[in-house]
Amino acid sequence: MTHPNPTAAMLVIGDEILSGRTRDANMHYLAGRLTEAGIDLREVRIVSDDRPAIVEAVSGLRRAYAHVFTSGGIGPTHDDITADCIAAAFGVAIGVRDDARAILQAHYDKAGTEMNAARLRMARIPDGATLIDNPVSAAPGFTIGNVHVMAGVPTIFQAMVEGLLPTLTGGTPLTSDAIRILRGEGDIAGPLGDLVARYPGLSFGSYPFQKDGVFGAQVVVRGQDADAVAAALGELRAAFPE
Amino acid sequence: MTHPNPTAAMLVIGDEILSGRTRDANMHYLAGRLTEAGIDLREVRIVSDDRPAIVEAVSGLRRAYAHVFTSGGIGPTHDDITADCIAAAFGVAIGVRDDARAILQAHYDKAGTEMNAARLRMARIPDGATLIDNPVSAAPGFTIGNVHVMAGVPTIFQAMVEGLLPTLTGGTPLTSDAIRILRGEGDIAGPLGDLVARYPGLSFGSYPFQKDGVFGAQVVVRGQDADAVAAALGELRAAFPE
Repeated sequence: MTHPNPTAAMLVIGDEILSGRTRDANMHYLAGRLTEAGIDLREVRIVSDDRPAIVEAVSGLRRAYAHVFTSGGIGPTHDDITADCIAAAFGVAIGVRDDARAILQAHYDKAGTEMNAARLRMARIPDGATLIDNPVSAAPGFTIGNVHVMAGVPTIFQAMVEGLLPTLTGGTPLTSDAIRILRGEGDIAGPLGDLVARYPGLSFGSYPFQKDGVFGAQVVVRGQDADAVAAALGELRAAFPE
Repeated sequence: MTHPNPTAAMLVIGDEILSGRTRDANMHYLAGRLTEAGIDLREVRIVSDDRPAIVEAVSGLRRAYAHVFTSGGIGPTHDDITADCIAAAFGVAIGVRDDARAILQAHYDKAGTEMNAARLRMARIPDGATLIDNPVSAAPGFTIGNVHVMAGVPTIFQAMVEGLLPTLTGGTPLTSDAIRILRGEGDIAGPLGDLVARYPGLSFGSYPFQKDGVFGAQVVVRGQDADAVAAALGELRAAFPE
């Protein structure tokens, strides 16, 4: 018997992605790692560096999903407002915390960098949060309730995810396999719809492509039951021999 | 005196992005093009191929923003449920529409492909919508109210965006026109490069397609000078007679 996996949402905070200047990398990374961990990413939102937008998104997502992962807005500059917004969403106070300040101070002492007011902002942590380790540049992320707040810089984000994931309870990792069918989706739809009806425990996706003179679709089969995934793939191979 | 730019949100529909299998490309493309057009992209949401999730997202976003652009879920397979969800979000009926069916039929007749039930699903359009041209593979998108519904395949999404954008009122109005050239991009590149050099005030985009044995490119010309756009299009037509 299978159990439903924990659900998750991601909130990406950053004007630069909405303006098209930067292409987000963290969403794709987190999506892959959560799938491997058996945590079911259901929704992603991208909002700008705007306090009401962030507070509203966090407030909604944390009630709807088992986990919420955020990316961006925890640096030292005036537009890094994520920690304050998270505190507001939870209705708790926020201030410089001694353990976070000590982590930063040790890092700057080692580097011969001076602590200043801007850097100290990165030690501001909402009351009741636990820190997420930042092995890259020291300034920590944090978890409060079911919300995990991480940096936007991809190398830091990824290091934080790797530290955080083992502390979360995942579900059954999904088995996923795919077949490339060199036919139009209009020809694939009928036999595929038949399979969908006969394998209710699996999910089927059809993703058309057109590349270098070849067209067809990648049909992906996913589920917790690896034998059923293999059986469905076998039927598709038989229906669409190469 | 300046006026605030129109606001926009994007809704990306697709399990394959949330599972980490595919990295979204349409968001980054739309973000850049909206910025150029003077339309202010404020929020992006990515949801799975799940009816309640899509209906709720569309219902919320269309009330909060001047424009909503969607990507994905309008093909012929069982997981293509976007059109039905949009109809539900607007509370209107949906069915096969004659003009959409005629577009598809003409496309399949030309390609020697048979119309079947799956392909006919792509002619299902919510009541009151206007069609968005699909120069790549015929199956149209549509606009209903302030929601613009487009395909997920990046070449098709981009061509639809290029057809749609000139019809919207942005902060920086541009004239845009396009020509469909049934030649490989390798043949188009030389004459097109010459045009690009001689019309420095215009921007040229080439969007290749390959579908059902027909291949070529949609070449889009954009600029604030409508006469120059028309002149450049005329030169392209002369260089590549049908």
